Amino acid sequence: MSVTAAKGFTASGIAAGIKENGNPDLALVVNNGPRLAAAGVFTSNRVKAAPVLWSEQVLKGGLVSAVVLNSGGANACTGPKGFQDTHATAEKVAEVLGHNAGEVAVASTGLIGLLLPMDKLLPGVVAAAQQLTEHGGEKAAIAIKTTDSVHKTSVVTKDGWTVGGMAKGAGMLAPGLATMLVVLTTDADVESDVLDMALRAATRTTFDRVDSDGCMSTNDTVLLLASGASQAAPEYAEFAEAVRAVCDDLGQQLIRDAEGASKDIKVEVINAASEDDAVEVGRSIARNNLLKCAIHGEDPNWGRVLSAIGTTQAAFEPDQLNVAINGVWVCENGGVGDDRDKVDMRYREVHIVADLAAGQETATIWTNDLTADYVHENSAYSS
Amino acid sequence: MSVTAAKGFTASGIAAGIKENGNPDLALVVNNGPRLAAAGVFTSNRVKAAPVLWSEQVLKGGLVSAVVLNSGGANACTGPKGFQDTHATAEKVAEVLGHNAGEVAVASTGLIGLLLPMDKLLPGVVAAAQQLTEHGGEKAAIAIKTTDSVHKTSVVTKDGWTVGGMAKGAGMLAPGLATMLVVLTTDADVESDVLDMALRAATRTTFDRVDSDGCMSTNDTVLLLASGASQAAPEYAEFAEAVRAVCDDLGQQLIRDAEGASKDIKVEVINAASEDDAVEVGRSIARNNLLKCAIHGEDPNWGRVLSAIGTTQAAFEPDQLNVAINGVWVCENGGVGDDRDKVDMRYREVHIVADLAAGQETATIWTNDLTADYVHENSAYSS
Repeated sequence: MSVTAAKGFTASGIAAGIKENGNPDLALVVNNGPRLAAAGVFTSNRVKAAPVLWSEQVLKGGLVSAVVLNSGGANACTGPKGFQDTHATAEKVAEVLGHNAGEVAVASTGLIGLLLPMDKLLPGVVAAAQQLTEHGGEKAAIAIKTTDSVHKTSVVTKDGWTVGGMAKGAGMLAPGLATMLVVLTTDADVESDVLDMALRAATRTTFDRVDSDGCMSTNDTVLLLASGASQAAPEYAEFAEAVRAVCDDLGQQLIRDAEGASKDIKVEVINAASEDDAVEVGRSIARNNLLKCAIHGEDPNWGRVLSAIGTTQAAFEPDQLNVAINGVWVCENGGVGDDRDKVDMRYREVHIVADLAAGQETATIWTNDLTADYVHENSAYSS
Repeated sequence: MSVTAAKGFTASGIAAGIKENGNPDLALVVNNGPRLAAAGVFTSNRVKAAPVLWSEQVLKGGLVSAVVLNSGGANACTGPKGFQDTHATAEKVAEVLGHNAGEVAVASTGLIGLLLPMDKLLPGVVAAAQQLTEHGGEKAAIAIKTTDSVHKTSVVTKDGWTVGGMAKGAGMLAPGLATMLVVLTTDADVESDVLDMALRAATRTTFDRVDSDGCMSTNDTVLLLASGASQAAPEYAEFAEAVRAVCDDLGQQLIRDAEGASKDIKVEVINAASEDDAVEVGRSIARNNLLKCAIHGEDPNWGRVLSAIGTTQAAFEPDQLNVAINGVWVCENGGVGDDRDKVDMRYREVHIVADLAAGQETATIWTNDLTADYVHENSAYSS
């Protein structure tokens, strides 16, 4: 159901010829109102793709009538021409739909440093507009895939209103969001400043804590559009929780589809002095290549967990650290704990708990193992 | 020639039975004076192995009469018993040689979280002491190997005095030094505070800028011992340069022997506003897994260089960044530069230049590519 689960939205996904292999590569999502409220969060990478620079400006107005997304090219590091191309894309959408270009968000994903084939993209916008339907969410989700093996959608339905969404992303997944495009829609009647608050709260504990390979993209974009078509005005807490639930579900789908991964690793940091400490320690563990290799080899190598914790500035005493892997406390008080042979690592999900014994705060970071397939996939991406 | 190239030193390397495969695993380096001056730098990981905690104390006195090193076990995360074992090892060396245990440094390398087999190690100390010779440097260098494919030694000889050394390390190579043990010796007549200054200056621009996999060890130790046996007292600048040259040579040998690597990558950051900026950017590039995979695939993927630069706090404007790979400026002014097909990446050494166009400072970080062999080697290490 994706982005068309909520009332007031139409969408489409087509093959415009941007991808040489002929796969779908252009998606359009349109908010038919009555409300056009929107919020967005973008990559914190200082090298931002042209569509990110454009859409950040659009979102400042708090109104988005349509989102056009393409795979097959990131339009990043493409200079003034790249920005002109993004602008022209928004203008074309506005022209075809009778919208204002200043309310059309643009998102792109694919290889950095290549100009988009505008002779294919602009006619594609016309074709995509012709195919807009209330059932187009699935096709839109398929059209934004790059190396994704599956398309990702999620829907939460409450009393008379709905939050739904689609996501793509399978590599370069990291801290401040990663080659990740997400469009969320809702028919709840919510103003843009409330959307913004709910979206930032949701991404902070979901997408921001999905750290597949520590690499931050130039293109990350998460948009939340509200049509108000349900005429329901939920309480903030309930609305925010629905947005969080959809983000969490999509984030989990991203991790499960990470390039070349054979394990999904849940790094849970407990008893930290602060949430910041817990996140810092979780990220350090999640980015440790040696540990990620060990997990791939089904080796409960807790020494690598401790050495990762030791590189952080978090509050802890080395001789009070405890680590559990899949429920077995293999490290106690900074040293050897329970028998590591008890750890069963045959399944895809691996659960690491790092107990800092320094407070009561907690955070969970999701990552993947490091595999030969990851290397193969990413050593041949642009060729 | 290693640690016995300088006059006044004897060394040995034996198989004590710590490694189950019977390979050499215990090394002893003895300073026979007349001077016993020493300096040391240690891992900045807050989870420090027992021998690091011990040797840091020893070095505070500025005197080291002997260094005992073992491979086959890191003695890290081993609690009070691990520290007692390190202490007992130093005491045994002192007893056998007639030294003061408070002047005996200890270094260990191998798997974290296992107690050392003291019933083999202590008799090994006796055997190693019996085999001390002025030609033992090579054997000592061999005995400290873990996954190293070759042993590493380096010597610089000046007018009447010498600096020599040995190193081990092939993985977990990172910022503040990594599973790296280094012993340097000199027969120059230099006091410990001058040794300390020269060693810190040398490691800051050599070992500290070798970043094979971003993982910082619990055991890194670099020691510099001076015997004064040459009776030569060099100028500081000349002495410091000799120490730097030996560190630089050993650092290069570590990179060339990094686990599973097929490329040595020199990341040179130029025109930075500060040296700190240059180092931050260099490390960010050197740790980007996607870029490291691309280099493995001989793909001059400069977009991944830019996305790595974009995650830093360094001073730069995205549209002024330039990147050269093996001499071809593939990125100019933040966008597409010269033809990427001109880049020849067939050889082992790859040279990336990142021009920040923000000042005049520079720094060079060395790293390796990310390969399936790295994954294989590190997913099976403890089994």
